[in-house]
Amino acid sequence: MSGLVECVPNVSEGRRPDVVRGLADVVSAVPGIRLLDLTSDADHNRSVITFAGDAEAVESAALALVAAAYGAIDMRTHIGEHPRLGAVDVVPFVPLSGSTMEDCVAIAKRVGGAVAKAHDVPVYYYAKAATRPERVRLPDIRKPQYEGLQALMDTTHGPDDGPARVHPTAGAIVVGARPPLIAFNIELDTADVKLAKRIAKEIRESSGGLTAVQAMGFELTDPVRAQVSMNLLDHSVTSLATVWREVEARANAAGVKVLRGELIGLAPLDAMLDVARESLRLDGLVRTQIIEGHFIR
Amino acid sequence: MSGLVECVPNVSEGRRPDVVRGLADVVSAVPGIRLLDLTSDADHNRSVITFAGDAEAVESAALALVAAAYGAIDMRTHIGEHPRLGAVDVVPFVPLSGSTMEDCVAIAKRVGGAVAKAHDVPVYYYAKAATRPERVRLPDIRKPQYEGLQALMDTTHGPDDGPARVHPTAGAIVVGARPPLIAFNIELDTADVKLAKRIAKEIRESSGGLTAVQAMGFELTDPVRAQVSMNLLDHSVTSLATVWREVEARANAAGVKVLRGELIGLAPLDAMLDVARESLRLDGLVRTQIIEGHFIR
Repeated sequence: MSGLVECVPNVSEGRRPDVVRGLADVVSAVPGIRLLDLTSDADHNRSVITFAGDAEAVESAALALVAAAYGAIDMRTHIGEHPRLGAVDVVPFVPLSGSTMEDCVAIAKRVGGAVAKAHDVPVYYYAKAATRPERVRLPDIRKPQYEGLQALMDTTHGPDDGPARVHPTAGAIVVGARPPLIAFNIELDTADVKLAKRIAKEIRESSGGLTAVQAMGFELTDPVRAQVSMNLLDHSVTSLATVWREVEARANAAGVKVLRGELIGLAPLDAMLDVARESLRLDGLVRTQIIEGHFIR
Repeated sequence: MSGLVECVPNVSEGRRPDVVRGLADVVSAVPGIRLLDLTSDADHNRSVITFAGDAEAVESAALALVAAAYGAIDMRTHIGEHPRLGAVDVVPFVPLSGSTMEDCVAIAKRVGGAVAKAHDVPVYYYAKAATRPERVRLPDIRKPQYEGLQALMDTTHGPDDGPARVHPTAGAIVVGARPPLIAFNIELDTADVKLAKRIAKEIRESSGGLTAVQAMGFELTDPVRAQVSMNLLDHSVTSLATVWREVEARANAAGVKVLRGELIGLAPLDAMLDVARESLRLDGLVRTQIIEGHFIR
């Protein structure tokens, strides 16, 4: 099994479907790459392209995508609600089966260096590829936005690679490495959305809850039900089984049962094996015990 | 994702490691095949070769193995404790991700037909490939053993394919299709092996327990602990989560905690996803939501 890597570039185009589809096609055309998801948001004027493959193929596909996006998107005319610094705004690399975070940091640095050189675009490294603490979080890097970036770049916000000069049409790019993100919801057997909001507040990291967990309480309709909607930013730190247990305990304490879980989009194999590992206390479980694990290329 | 199939042939040779290794090499040499396990037992004078790959590759590898085994094993001189009918005693095909039981039944029939034709060997179909109820279970087919087979074949035990004449050196062959077998143990926090034996008896199918479950109670040493050792013969009928729950409930009722689970050898991806499906009540979970599932070839 060679190392699989996921890449989730966010591009500043969400209103021209043909352009977005063209970018996805550029990615899919790289041998060994699977396009896993393509989501556009017109209000944000932004698209998220999710693909995966062997490390080498993913690196090639990311560079091909950047070149194609720079040919199609002009930041001078870009308007959208979502904060952004460039035509290709952020490019995270994510380790999957057979690859490590270190591999992904190395890929991020190589891709960043190549983009700087080929396109004369300033590069910031974020998350696990960050070069300093104040550049770990994306919002901190993106704060000045495209329009205010040059002024800040001239003083405190110099790039990690490439020129200290915002590219007029491409802007700047943020490249990094992070764990896979898992979107996971739990539906409660109640219409009491206040309970879901309270549980969400108790378990999310931002209010002192579980590490690497974002959570919100929502009301589902038809039938009306309360839902705790979560992002697990690092399932190796806080697992699916852990958030299930924590949400269930709080709901039960309020006399409410949990109805079901829901996985939104994709999750890595390791996160699912962790569930089996915890539920059946299979401390010694390794990925090579899964027959299909021998056929992941 | 194309269909993966596992094949677990049992051959009547467990005392000549070079011969067994040679048979495994014949299998491994088929493009796309992964040898997953090779276990020999000298007392039984028998080896189990586990391999998997695309359906077509597995079919080729099975036929190549049969030809090689027939060239190396002579049933006229075979002695061993384990019941057997032939040099290649039993060849089960097992559906994995992307293939179905129907696919495996079809493979079993094609392989059986080809072996009958190429080697002039009588063929019995068993398990899901059985042609009549009394040939579903392997022990029923294997009862006369190699030595008594011709006498029975002349009366009631005619083969499903090939000649009604036991091949002098190859004997007969049993070919079939079955679900994956999962070997799973649960360790109890007690030295009371009687409790493990009682739980095993209560949960195994043969004494009225859970469908498709075999179970025994054992004593582990260093430290001394009781263990319930199980084979799950069809995890889609009785799952890992179910046996865990049933064993845990009975242990707890006796005031004993369960310490840990242990997966022996390999398990299919679907069995692990079932654990996540049950633990997190992910009714809608599908294999394509596992990122690596897109890279199983």
